[in-house]
Amino acid sequence: MYVILVYDVNVARVSKVLKTARKYLHWVQNSVLEGELTEASFRKLKMELERIIDREEDSILFYVLGSQRYTRREIIGVRKGGEEWVW
Amino acid sequence: MYVILVYDVNVARVSKVLKTARKYLHWVQNSVLEGELTEASFRKLKMELERIIDREEDSILFYVLGSQRYTRREIIGVRKGGEEWVW
Repeated sequence: MYVILVYDVNVARVSKVLKTARKYLHWVQNSVLEGELTEASFRKLKMELERIIDREEDSILFYVLGSQRYTRREIIGVRKGGEEWVW
Repeated sequence: MYVILVYDVNVARVSKVLKTARKYLHWVQNSVLEGELTEASFRKLKMELERIIDREEDSILFYVLGSQRYTRREIIGVRKGGEEWVW
């Protein structure tokens, strides 16, 4: 399965969330990571993130794409944060 | 085509970016919108956004999924911003 993760968390927890997510996924933009995961790794990632975030304040959104990935990715403006572009 | 948009722009331009993007897409999280678009509408959306953003400072990322959409969407923590969940 291919997963896109977008986080929106309090600045106090950003570095922890990012560090954890980067163990599993590639960082592509300030608040966006993506990558191929097994179901087991995806569950593990979510469990680890749930331990970090404040569920009343933070939000982490996942898009699960099956094995197909996406057709293409485009960006306008500057490339931020993510140094792990694979294309 | 199905488009997921993630913006990361200076707070001074957030409301303009959001207002423009919402003419074309559904707002699903603080900085995330998505929806079905024609190629022509997608080009128009990008042109409008390019007129608003500062290309040296702001960043807008698009995932283009073809007509397939995604397998599923999951969220942990709070649902933020987007009041346009369609599921």
